[in-house]
Amino acid sequence: MELTHIEHLGIAVKSIEAQLPYYENVLGLKCYSIEEVADQKVKTAFFKIGQTKIELLEPTSEDSAVAKFIEKKGEGIHHIAFATASVADALTEVESKGVQLIDKAPRKGAEGLNIAFLHPKTTGSVLTELCEDPNK
Amino acid sequence: MELTHIEHLGIAVKSIEAQLPYYENVLGLKCYSIEEVADQKVKTAFFKIGQTKIELLEPTSEDSAVAKFIEKKGEGIHHIAFATASVADALTEVESKGVQLIDKAPRKGAEGLNIAFLHPKTTGSVLTELCEDPNK
Repeated sequence: MELTHIEHLGIAVKSIEAQLPYYENVLGLKCYSIEEVADQKVKTAFFKIGQTKIELLEPTSEDSAVAKFIEKKGEGIHHIAFATASVADALTEVESKGVQLIDKAPRKGAEGLNIAFLHPKTTGSVLTELCEDPNK
Repeated sequence: MELTHIEHLGIAVKSIEAQLPYYENVLGLKCYSIEEVADQKVKTAFFKIGQTKIELLEPTSEDSAVAKFIEKKGEGIHHIAFATASVADALTEVESKGVQLIDKAPRKGAEGLNIAFLHPKTTGSVLTELCEDPNK
């Protein structure tokens, strides 16, 4: 498995609207997309910096995993997502090495990527996502 | 202020030794440096992935900020560090926009970079570092 770069960082926020001025006016990044991901019960806002995107995650429901994260740990960095050529191959490899999979097979995530999450119990407490761009 | 890329991500761990097998054998990254940063009371281990480094932070003292972070929130992503051409200029700019500075002026961090931290109270709860490579 080769991880080429950090595809994005997910940051849990209570309100995208409240955080936009910091990311845009202070950090000077430009929000190029706001998208709702219904099955994850979040609204997302994307910024690009170098090879990496920053993805703000605002829960749209109290029972969303992001709402529970904020309740437990507060707002902050929620997950790290690595880019790789094949998420399916990567899942097979990391599972064989003892990593617990949240997603047994790739599924569609924001921006049309094929994604899968690994369980933080087996990734040094860092919620970890693997991403593959099907158009590359 | 232009942020060019994510210079590194700091990840708080109880033990670098315990985490190395995950980063090296599962993720396939190579630890190229282990360094103690005495004034931050941490031992650091560095990996490179694309433009970004991953910096594992192991506290070397119970009163290190990283030890307190782990006690409060558990192991996990501790801070995000952005690369910029001049940390001094960036500090002036972000302070004028209402960001609270932890470091009023750049200081030396790991790997000889000039660095400064911004207070998470004013950065959407994300502990944020600015980095400048003096050799660039």
